[in-house]
Amino acid sequence: MSILIKNGHVIYGENLEIVRADVLIEGNRIVSVEKKINETADTVIDATGRVVSPGFINLHTHSPMGLLRGLADDLPLMDWLQNHIWPREAKLTREYTKVGAYLGALEMIKTGTTAFLDMYFFMDAVAEVVEESGLRGYLSYGMIDLGDPEKTEKELKEALRTMEFIEKLGSDRVHFVFGPHAPYTCSIALLKEVRRLASEHNKLITIHVSETMAEIGQITERYGKSPVVLLDDIGFLGNDVIIAHGVWLDSRDIQILARHGVTVAHNPGSNMKLASGVMPLEKLLNAGVNIGLGTDGSASNNNLDMLDEMKLAALLHKVHNLDPTVADARTVFRMATLNGAKALSLKAGVIKEGYLADIAIINFNRPHLRPINDVISHLVYSANGNDVETTIADGKILMLDREVLTLDEERILDEAEKTIGKLA
Amino acid sequence: MSILIKNGHVIYGENLEIVRADVLIEGNRIVSVEKKINETADTVIDATGRVVSPGFINLHTHSPMGLLRGLADDLPLMDWLQNHIWPREAKLTREYTKVGAYLGALEMIKTGTTAFLDMYFFMDAVAEVVEESGLRGYLSYGMIDLGDPEKTEKELKEALRTMEFIEKLGSDRVHFVFGPHAPYTCSIALLKEVRRLASEHNKLITIHVSETMAEIGQITERYGKSPVVLLDDIGFLGNDVIIAHGVWLDSRDIQILARHGVTVAHNPGSNMKLASGVMPLEKLLNAGVNIGLGTDGSASNNNLDMLDEMKLAALLHKVHNLDPTVADARTVFRMATLNGAKALSLKAGVIKEGYLADIAIINFNRPHLRPINDVISHLVYSANGNDVETTIADGKILMLDREVLTLDEERILDEAEKTIGKLA
Repeated sequence: MSILIKNGHVIYGENLEIVRADVLIEGNRIVSVEKKINETADTVIDATGRVVSPGFINLHTHSPMGLLRGLADDLPLMDWLQNHIWPREAKLTREYTKVGAYLGALEMIKTGTTAFLDMYFFMDAVAEVVEESGLRGYLSYGMIDLGDPEKTEKELKEALRTMEFIEKLGSDRVHFVFGPHAPYTCSIALLKEVRRLASEHNKLITIHVSETMAEIGQITERYGKSPVVLLDDIGFLGNDVIIAHGVWLDSRDIQILARHGVTVAHNPGSNMKLASGVMPLEKLLNAGVNIGLGTDGSASNNNLDMLDEMKLAALLHKVHNLDPTVADARTVFRMATLNGAKALSLKAGVIKEGYLADIAIINFNRPHLRPINDVISHLVYSANGNDVETTIADGKILMLDREVLTLDEERILDEAEKTIGKLA
Repeated sequence: MSILIKNGHVIYGENLEIVRADVLIEGNRIVSVEKKINETADTVIDATGRVVSPGFINLHTHSPMGLLRGLADDLPLMDWLQNHIWPREAKLTREYTKVGAYLGALEMIKTGTTAFLDMYFFMDAVAEVVEESGLRGYLSYGMIDLGDPEKTEKELKEALRTMEFIEKLGSDRVHFVFGPHAPYTCSIALLKEVRRLASEHNKLITIHVSETMAEIGQITERYGKSPVVLLDDIGFLGNDVIIAHGVWLDSRDIQILARHGVTVAHNPGSNMKLASGVMPLEKLLNAGVNIGLGTDGSASNNNLDMLDEMKLAALLHKVHNLDPTVADARTVFRMATLNGAKALSLKAGVIKEGYLADIAIINFNRPHLRPINDVISHLVYSANGNDVETTIADGKILMLDREVLTLDEERILDEAEKTIGKLA
């Protein structure tokens, strides 16, 4: 299988150089980016007036939560979780979760996301959906033991069962990740065992850390230290760990994260909507911490649109610091693409020879994207997910001219609508 | 001319009740909203799976600035204005401005805006574009005299010339508004004369007030009082005044604005991007001040998408106050619709019998808008301008199924691209 994308504005390489060029894909790799490629290809896409961008990498989400979109807004985090989200999640079955996973996968394909790091339940069902969708999924079962040793056993067992299920799928695109929910919901015993297992099986770990002030208070009261210091002290941290949020990090926490090569998945939309706070972006960047971008789940955002999320990231830090020069467009664009790839040890997030063919083609023939004064600025500040026209992952076309080829859009929308009635 | 919109989810009345109903438009008014309307109509629109919303009212913008979109980002306000925006604006001709106005009008129609309050130069050209586009435009020539009496005369003359031009157009949809730029760029003499003329001619006034800390410092140094107190002291304020921004308002300022019935046009995107600060939304609401929503110009946003702007408004105030209950979806939706209409003394912004037929129909058959758990939440937190399918203003269809009927989209995009080259 080969694909030739012609005449686009290509965002080339790590420096995000904008070049008018053709892009040739063979198998699942980008093999050539040149002014004029005359080779034939199985599929030729005319990208005149379009931008050829790395596909977006959503580094923190709960993809099936689209089902709960808009069910409870404008509420404090714990009220939202305890009285609205958790009661509904308690009714979730494998079947319902799969409907949510389809909805999430569909939304990601339609908005140019090509890879995502997920945490939820029934992750075997999510794995099947990801495999079918053509996306790259890094999937973690969210473990919560609340200090109950029986629960610790049960949660680890479910995680390992999910790992086996995913390994049996044998997909290059679907990966298991360990996902202890957070230091305030997981025992030290669970966290230590996760660390051991992740190293043994060579898997990534993702975990919510320092999301709210309440969490900091709780952990400090319980352990006499911050969540990050706690994780450091038990030997949990490493460059295979991706922490979500990292809102309430102090200077010592940041130094620890930098020292271990931990990645932070930044979720500006969720942090704003739940009023969790503002991640110390500049301090993290100055310390050299790798920062990716995530949407969090659709119940706290309320979408999976990475283009929307880039704008939120760029704007939030400017106003918070009263400094318009922070979180510039290029820094934020890298968070949504190559920084995410780095965290996942994925040779993607960049349009360049030898890289995986994970690509979003964005239609700039639209009033809000003209004149084409600055491609990266337009993507960060003016575009949205609906501007994505074609999505390619692993060298396969998942959406062409807004038509999703791997999933049945109408059926998924119908089933999502029917399923939510059953969860009421 | 009559239009019948069938089977939609209608956002009905001031309370934003969601009803499944048909909407009948005759002439430029909504005449009936009922379960099943069997009358015939010149045009019938099937809105199954769609939401029938009041058209959005952009209460502060500089519509031709789309030309400058993305030319200079991530810079401080005065650097941005003095070194990038003003030098280019100095080269603007009537012809170039008109190209920008077409681009702005096109973008607004495509994103469901039906009325806007504008401030820029060559407003006679903008008026012609608005008349042609089918939008409602409230157009002010931005006056800046910098204390030079000769300039005062000249600016007032240009404003009055624009007023006459617009009155001669004789359009029900195009209105002249007085637009002194700001207290820091206009003399007291100019401001006083504007107040007199506005009362004499029964026109609205719009002005930038308390946008940046620098402005507060400058005005306080020059006059020994805040910009709002200054305007109050010279008798400038009234319920016909719409101030843009209102970021750095203290309690006394807020009481003064409330007492005079002044409207504040809130511009969260611009205030965030230029790092101007955060408007005290809760205090203004508590004082009973009317608050509308604006995008500001496309050089500081960088689009005119009111759906995008609603999300920014809702999220910004939550995180700034560390309180997720502020700026709830319904409050923000009203800012973007009926509060704007109130400021303009326009019987619009609400879907209800007797109101002007200014309507946006939004396609909810999309993964990021399903399940339809909460229409208003989805519009504020998940939708974007590209989801708008049909735009109706003053009882006339401006866009049907994404096709703009009043303007030549392809030509406008082409000309915008060519024009920017000439301004470099």
